Amino acid sequence: MKVLIVNGPNLNLLGTREPQIYGNRAFEKYFNILKDDYPDLELEYFQSNVEGEMINKMQEVRDTHDGIVLNAGGYTHTSVALHDCIAAIDIPVVEVHISNLSAREEFRHKSMIAPKCVGTISGFGLESYRLGTLALKSHVG
Amino acid sequence: MKVLIVNGPNLNLLGTREPQIYGNRAFEKYFNILKDDYPDLELEYFQSNVEGEMINKMQEVRDTHDGIVLNAGGYTHTSVALHDCIAAIDIPVVEVHISNLSAREEFRHKSMIAPKCVGTISGFGLESYRLGTLALKSHVG
Amino acid sequence: MKVLIVNGPNLNLLGTREPQIYGNRAFEKYFNILKDDYPDLELEYFQSNVEGEMINKMQEVRDTHDGIVLNAGGYTHTSVALHDCIAAIDIPVVEVHISNLSAREEFRHKSMIAPKCVGTISGFGLESYRLGTLALKSHVG
Amino acid sequence: MKVLIVNGPNLNLLGTREPQIYGNRAFEKYFNILKDDYPDLELEYFQSNVEGEMINKMQEVRDTHDGIVLNAGGYTHTSVALHDCIAAIDIPVVEVHISNLSAREEFRHKSMIAPKCVGTISGFGLESYRLGTLALKSHVG
Amino acid sequence: MKVLIVNGPNLNLLGTREPQIYGNRAFEKYFNILKDDYPDLELEYFQSNVEGEMINKMQEVRDTHDGIVLNAGGYTHTSVALHDCIAAIDIPVVEVHISNLSAREEFRHKSMIAPKCVGTISGFGLESYRLGTLALKSHVG
Amino acid sequence: MKVLIVNGPNLNLLGTREPQIYGNRAFEKYFNILKDDYPDLELEYFQSNVEGEMINKMQEVRDTHDGIVLNAGGYTHTSVALHDCIAAIDIPVVEVHISNLSAREEFRHKSMIAPKCVGTISGFGLESYRLGTLALKSHVG
Amino acid sequence: MKVLIVNGPNLNLLGTREPQIYGNRAFEKYFNILKDDYPDLELEYFQSNVEGEMINKMQEVRDTHDGIVLNAGGYTHTSVALHDCIAAIDIPVVEVHISNLSAREEFRHKSMIAPKCVGTISGFGLESYRLGTLALKSHVG
Amino acid sequence: MKVLIVNGPNLNLLGTREPQIYGNRAFEKYFNILKDDYPDLELEYFQSNVEGEMINKMQEVRDTHDGIVLNAGGYTHTSVALHDCIAAIDIPVVEVHISNLSAREEFRHKSMIAPKCVGTISGFGLESYRLGTLALKSHVG
Amino acid sequence: MKVLIVNGPNLNLLGTREPQIYGNRAFEKYFNILKDDYPDLELEYFQSNVEGEMINKMQEVRDTHDGIVLNAGGYTHTSVALHDCIAAIDIPVVEVHISNLSAREEFRHKSMIAPKCVGTISGFGLESYRLGTLALKSHVG
Amino acid sequence: MKVLIVNGPNLNLLGTREPQIYGNRAFEKYFNILKDDYPDLELEYFQSNVEGEMINKMQEVRDTHDGIVLNAGGYTHTSVALHDCIAAIDIPVVEVHISNLSAREEFRHKSMIAPKCVGTISGFGLESYRLGTLALKSHVG
Amino acid sequence: MKVLIVNGPNLNLLGTREPQIYGNRAFEKYFNILKDDYPDLELEYFQSNVEGEMINKMQEVRDTHDGIVLNAGGYTHTSVALHDCIAAIDIPVVEVHISNLSAREEFRHKSMIAPKCVGTISGFGLESYRLGTLALKSHVG
Amino acid sequence: MKVLIVNGPNLNLLGTREPQIYGNRAFEKYFNILKDDYPDLELEYFQSNVEGEMINKMQEVRDTHDGIVLNAGGYTHTSVALHDCIAAIDIPVVEVHISNLSAREEFRHKSMIAPKCVGTISGFGLESYRLGTLALKSHVG
Repeated sequence: MKVLIVNGPNLNLLGTREPQIYGNRAFEKYFNILKDDYPDLELEYFQSNVEGEMINKMQEVRDTHDGIVLNAGGYTHTSVALHDCIAAIDIPVVEVHISNLSAREEFRHKSMIAPKCVGTISGFGLESYRLGTLALKSHVG
Repeated sequence: MKVLIVNGPNLNLLGTREPQIYGNRAFEKYFNILKDDYPDLELEYFQSNVEGEMINKMQEVRDTHDGIVLNAGGYTHTSVALHDCIAAIDIPVVEVHISNLSAREEFRHKSMIAPKCVGTISGFGLESYRLGTLALKSHVG
Repeated sequence: MKVLIVNGPNLNLLGTREPQIYGNRAFEKYFNILKDDYPDLELEYFQSNVEGEMINKMQEVRDTHDGIVLNAGGYTHTSVALHDCIAAIDIPVVEVHISNLSAREEFRHKSMIAPKCVGTISGFGLESYRLGTLALKSHVG
Repeated sequence: MKVLIVNGPNLNLLGTREPQIYGNRAFEKYFNILKDDYPDLELEYFQSNVEGEMINKMQEVRDTHDGIVLNAGGYTHTSVALHDCIAAIDIPVVEVHISNLSAREEFRHKSMIAPKCVGTISGFGLESYRLGTLALKSHVG
Repeated sequence: MKVLIVNGPNLNLLGTREPQIYGNRAFEKYFNILKDDYPDLELEYFQSNVEGEMINKMQEVRDTHDGIVLNAGGYTHTSVALHDCIAAIDIPVVEVHISNLSAREEFRHKSMIAPKCVGTISGFGLESYRLGTLALKSHVG
Repeated sequence: MKVLIVNGPNLNLLGTREPQIYGNRAFEKYFNILKDDYPDLELEYFQSNVEGEMINKMQEVRDTHDGIVLNAGGYTHTSVALHDCIAAIDIPVVEVHISNLSAREEFRHKSMIAPKCVGTISGFGLESYRLGTLALKSHVG
Repeated sequence: MKVLIVNGPNLNLLGTREPQIYGNRAFEKYFNILKDDYPDLELEYFQSNVEGEMINKMQEVRDTHDGIVLNAGGYTHTSVALHDCIAAIDIPVVEVHISNLSAREEFRHKSMIAPKCVGTISGFGLESYRLGTLALKSHVG
Repeated sequence: MKVLIVNGPNLNLLGTREPQIYGNRAFEKYFNILKDDYPDLELEYFQSNVEGEMINKMQEVRDTHDGIVLNAGGYTHTSVALHDCIAAIDIPVVEVHISNLSAREEFRHKSMIAPKCVGTISGFGLESYRLGTLALKSHVG
Repeated sequence: MKVLIVNGPNLNLLGTREPQIYGNRAFEKYFNILKDDYPDLELEYFQSNVEGEMINKMQEVRDTHDGIVLNAGGYTHTSVALHDCIAAIDIPVVEVHISNLSAREEFRHKSMIAPKCVGTISGFGLESYRLGTLALKSHVG
Repeated sequence: MKVLIVNGPNLNLLGTREPQIYGNRAFEKYFNILKDDYPDLELEYFQSNVEGEMINKMQEVRDTHDGIVLNAGGYTHTSVALHDCIAAIDIPVVEVHISNLSAREEFRHKSMIAPKCVGTISGFGLESYRLGTLALKSHVG
Repeated sequence: MKVLIVNGPNLNLLGTREPQIYGNRAFEKYFNILKDDYPDLELEYFQSNVEGEMINKMQEVRDTHDGIVLNAGGYTHTSVALHDCIAAIDIPVVEVHISNLSAREEFRHKSMIAPKCVGTISGFGLESYRLGTLALKSHVG
Repeated sequence: MKVLIVNGPNLNLLGTREPQIYGNRAFEKYFNILKDDYPDLELEYFQSNVEGEMINKMQEVRDTHDGIVLNAGGYTHTSVALHDCIAAIDIPVVEVHISNLSAREEFRHKSMIAPKCVGTISGFGLESYRLGTLALKSHVG
C-alpha cells in the first residue's frame, strides 16, 4: 500500500514556526519515525508552498498511490481548486491538521476541502499524521 | 488507563438507523471488538438521549477516568451546556463522528464542543471510535 | 391504525398558559373528544418537558405504531437531536403547531424538524391536532 | 358556506409538471372529488399565473365568500402585494402547499404571506387542499 | 404640465382596507380635491394590481407627460422590473407612501425603486400625494 | 403655529460643500425665502455639529413649539440618542434630506430616526425643507 | 427546429432605454437579421412586461417548440414563479442578458432562474441572443 | 415571601470549575450565607443539568412561590423551551449570571430567556444572586 | 467611598418621557432617597446629552472617586468612545438600565460598553440604580 | 486575429475527471476541432494549475494577442489577483465555464473575475469554448 | 505649510491609558519633538472628546491650513458626521492610528472615515503621527 | 540594516496598468530613487505573481534580513497562507498599498495579513513604500 503525505504552505517550517501552536519537532524527523513504525506501508512525503504544485503532485500520483494524507495548511480554508482536485482524482484523501482549528481564529473554522475528503483529523499535534495514515489504511484495506 | 466512550442521542439505534450514513453494525458489537483489541485499556460505554444525563455522567467520571471519547450526536451543534461541561471537567475529551459532517447539511458543519476538546476525528465510520481512543491514549500517555 | 400524539415542553400547561395565544382548553379534554370522534384509530398521548425523553418515546413506538403527530414546542426550532430521531425511526411524523408560528417572534419562523416530517400544520388552535391526525391517516392509509 | 380555492403560477400544469414532487393528478379531477365529498360547501376554483390577477380575484370575493384556500406557488416567497391583499380583505385565508417546502430549496423556506393567513398546511400532496378546506370550515364555523 | 399618479396593488381598496394604517378615505375623492386645488396641473390617475400593467402605463406616458407620482404599494420592495422601468423612461418619478414605512415591518424598510426616483415622501397619509405633486412641480418647473 | 428647523452636522457648510450633491445655496438665504413665503408660520432655525446640543435644543422647544423639521445629517444613520429624543418629546418631527439617500452609499439607506418621525421627505434639494414644513402644517393643522 | 425568444419587462424599449447600457438598436431589427442568418431555424419572438404572461407563453409552447432563449429582464433576480415554470416545462431554456450583470448593481448578481436553465450567456450586447440561439441549437441538435 | 433559586447545567461544579471565571466557592456555602442574611425570605435551591427538569421544577412552584432567581447556565443562549416556560408561569423570574457574559465568547452575548424575565444581573460573581434576590424582593414587594 | 452616577442622553426627562417604559418619577427625587438610604456613601450625580461631556466627566473623576454607576442611554449601543473611556480610566464602572433592553427593539440588545464594565443590571426601573450602587460597593469593598 | 484559450486548475484532467459534470472528452481533442472549424483564427492553448502562472501567461500575451477565452476553474470564485490581471491587461477576456455554475454548490455562484470580463458563457459543456471564441470574435471584429 | 493634528476621544489620556496598547508617552511631549524635527512645518494640535467639536475645528481650519493629520479614536468606526466633514472641507486629511487596528477587536476593523481620507497609517505607535505628517507633506508638496 | 521589498501579483505592470489608480511610474525607477535616498539601508526587491513563491522568498530571508515591506496585491484579501507565513517568520513585516483600499471595491476593505504585520500604510501612491521603509526602520532601530 502506497501513501503520499502532502504538506502545504509554511509546514516546511515545522519545529521553528510558532512552537506554542505547532510543536518543536521538524516534520522530517517525525516522518522517519512513522516510516519505521509502519514498514508494511510505502510512505512518501511532499511539501510545497505553491497551491498549484500541490495540485500537480496530487494529480500525478492518482494512478500510482492508494491514498493521500493531506495537510493543506492555509489553503484549507480558501481553495476551491484543491477541493476540485480531490474530487477529480479517484484515490481517497484524508485531511489532517496539527492544531485544533475550532479553537483558533474564526477563518480557520471552515474547511473548503473537507466535503471531498474521506474524513478529517484535527488537533493531535504531529500524531494527527499517524492517525490519518491509520484511518487511510483502514479505509482502503 | 480508564476511558469512557459517550454516545449521544439516537446513537443507540446504530445498525438500524439510516444505514447508508451510519453503517449497519450495532455499536455494542463494535465496542466488544475494541475492548478485545486494547486489553491494556479499561474501556467503558455510556449512551443517553438526554443532554443533561450526558453531562451528569461526564461530571461523574472526572475523578475516576483518564479521558472521554465523545460522540455528542445532534447535541454537537447546539449545546453550550456540553461545551461548558468539557471546559469544567479536567480530563481530556476527544470528539468523534461516524460520518463526515462537512459533507452533510449546513447545520452540521459547526461544532459547539470542538473548541474545548483536544481534537476531532470525523468521517471514518465506526473506526472513528478506534482512532479517537488511540488519539486519547497518545495524548494522555 | 395506531397513532401517538407527542407534546413537548410547556404544552402540559395548555389551558392555563398564555390563553390569548394557546386558548383555554386543557389538552386532555380535547384529546378525549378526538378519541371519540375517531373510534377506528387507536390514539395515544405522551407529554414531556425533556427533549431526550421525547426521543426515547418516539424511538420506543417505532415498531408498534403507524405514525406520530408531534408538537415539539420550543424544541422545534433548535433540536438537531429530534430532527435526527425522526429521520432514524421509520414511521411517518406529522408536525403540528397550535399558533401560526410565522406571525410570532422571528426565532419561531424556522423549524429544525420540518424537513424530516411528512408535512406541517400550523395555526389552527387545537384543531391542528385533528388536521394532523387526518393528514397522517390519509398519508398512511 | 362559500369557499374559493386559488392556485398560483404553474399550478395549472399539475399532473404533468415534475411529478416526483407534485404528483401526477390534474387539479381539476381532484377538485371534483372535493366538491362531491363536501356537498354542504360551495367550492369554487380559480387559477392564474399573474400575481395581480390573483389579487384582483381575491379582492372581488371579499364580500361574497367566507374564506379562501390559497396556494400562491412561486409568489409565496416574494410577494408583498399578496401579503397586503390578505391583510386588506376581511375574510380568512388558509395557506396550503402540495410539497413539504422545508425539505426543498432554501428560498422556499420563508413565506411572505403566512403571517397574514390563519394558518399553513404543507406537504400532504393534493390532500393539503382538503385539510385546508376543513381547517377553514372549522375556523369559520 | 401633465402629471400621472400611479397607484399599485391593493391601493384600490383605500378607505376600506386596514383604516388604522391607511385612513378611511377612498382615493378617488381625494384625487378630485387635488384636481380642484391645482387647476394649472393636468392630473391623471391610474391604478393596477398587475406589476406589468403599471410598467406598460408608465412606458406609455413617457412622451406625453411631464412626470409621475408613484405609490408602488407592495411592489416597492421587490420589483427590479419597476426599478428598470423608471430608469428606462426619461420623465421624473416621485415615490410616495401613505404610511411611514420605517415604522412598519422590516421588509418594508428597503425600497427597490427609490434609487431611480427623484426623491421619496413617506408617512403623511393621503397628503403624501399632494406633497409629491408639489415636489414634482418644483423639480420640473 | 411655531416651527423649529434643525440642521445637523456639516449643514452649516451648505452652498460651499460638495455642491454637486447639496447644491450651491447657503441655507440662511433659503430660510429667509421660506419665512417670506409663509408669513403665518413662526419659523425658527438652529444648527449644530454636536449631537447632544441638537438633543438639548429639541428638548427645550417641546413645550413652546408645534413641531420640528429635522435634517439630522450624518447622525441620521447612527443616533439612538436622537431616536429616543424624538420619542421622548411630544411634538411631531418631520425628517427631511436634501439628497436622495437611497441613491447614495449603502450606509445612508437606513435611518435610525425615521420610525419615530411623522414621515420622511428625501431628495428634493432645499425644497425638501419647504415640503417638510407643509407636511408638518398639514399634520398639525 | 423551432425556437422562441422571450423578452421580459422594459426590453420593448431597447434602442431608446439607457443606450449606454443596452445599446441603441431596437430588438425587432436585430431579430430580423437573426432570422435571415439562420434560415434553417424557425425563430419566433415574444415580449411582455407581465411576469404571468411570460409564464403563460412559455407553458403554451412547451409542446410545439424545441427550446426557448429567455431574457427575463428584471424578473431574473426575484421570480420563483419563472424558476418553477422553467422546471415545469420540458423543453430547454437558455438564459441571456445584454449587459454584463456581474459588473452592475449588487442585486443583479444573482439569477433565480439560472439553476433551471441549460446555461447562461451574459454581456455581449444583442449578440448574446445569437450566441444563445447557437447554444440552444448545439444543445438540442 | 418564598423564592426559588434555580441553577442550570454545570453550576453544581461551582468552586472547582474554571475558578478564574467562576470563583472558588461552592454554591451551597454561599447559599447558606444568603439564607442567614435574609431571614425574612424563604429561600430554596434547585440545581439540574437537565433542561426539562428545570422546566418541571419551575412549573411546579408557580403556585407556591413568589418568584424565581434563575441562572440557566449554558441553556441561557439556546433554550426556547425555557423562554416559553418563563412566559407560561405567572410568577416573576430574575435572570442572573456570575460572569460578565458580554466580556466572554460571542455565543454568550445573547440571552434567549431575558425578554421574558423581569430583568438581568450579570457579572458580579456570586453576589449576582444576592442582587437578584433583592431585585425580586423589590419587584414583588 | 465616593460614587458618581452618570446619566446619558434624554435621561434628564425621566418622569415625563414615555412613562409606560421609564416610570413617572424624576431622577432627582429618587437620587435623594438613595443618598438618604446610604449615608456611608458619597453619591454624586451628573447628566449630559453630549457623549463627549460624559467622557470628560468620567475622565475627570478617575482619581477622585471609587467607581461609577453608568446609564449611557442611547449611546450604550453605538459608542466606541465610551467603551474606550471605561477601559482607559482605572476605576470600576457598573452599567445600569431602567428598562429590560432585551425585551425592546433589536438595536437595544447589544451593549458596546458592557465588555469593559464590571457587570450589568437591567430592567428593574429606578431600582436598577440602587442595585448598581450596591454591586459597586460589594465589588470595591 | 490571435486568441489564447486559458484553462485553470484541474482542467487538464478533462475527460477523466467527474465525467457526469465535465463530460468525457479530453480538451486537446476538442481544441483541434475548434482550430479546424475556425481556420481564420490563430488559436492557442495554455493550461496551468498555478494561479500565478496563469497571470504570467495572460500578462505575456497582452501585446501579441487580440483576446483571451478564460476558464479559471476553481480560481474563478476566490482570485482577486486574476481579477486585477484582467483589469490590468488591455485585451478583452471572455469568461467560460463547462458546467452551469448556478446549479452547483453555493460557493460556485459568485465569480470574482466576471466584472472585469466582457461577458460570461456558462453551462454548455465544451461548446462553451466555441461560443466564447465566437463572442470574442464578434466583440473584437 | 500649516498642518493641524487632531486627536479624538480619550487620546488626552495617552501615557496613562492602557500603556500595553498605547505606550507610556504623553502626546504633548511627542508633539514637541515633532515640531523640533520639522521646523519648516507649522504644526498645531487640537484634542477633544466631543465629536461635534472635532467637526467644528476641522471646518474652521479649512481655509487657513494645508492639511490635517487625524486620529479620530473611537469615532473612527461609527461617525458618518466626520466622514461627511472630511468630504465637505477641501483640504487633505491623513488618517492615523497608534495601534494596529486589524489586530484588535472586530469592531475596530472598519473605518468610516478612511474612504474620504488621502490614506491611512496604522500600527506604528506615536511614530504613526510622524509618518502621517510626512505623508501629508509629500501629498501636498 | 537589510530590508526586502516584496511586490505581489500584477505589480510588475506598475506604470502601464490602470494609471488612474496606480500612477504611471514603473516600480524599478522608484526603487532606485529609494536606494539613493537611504544609502544606510540595504534595500532589495522581489516580485512574483505566484503566492507560493512570495512565501518561499519571505521564508528564505527570515535569517538574513531585518524586515520586509510587503505589498501583497490581490493576495492581501484572501491569503491565509501569507498570513501564516508572516506569523511563522520572526522578522517584522510592514504592509503597504499604493491606492486607498477603503475607497475602492468592498472586497478590498479587509486585509487577511494585517493582523500579523507591524502596521499598515495605504493610499499614498508609490510614497507608501518610502513611508513603509521608514516605519520599519523606526520599528527595528
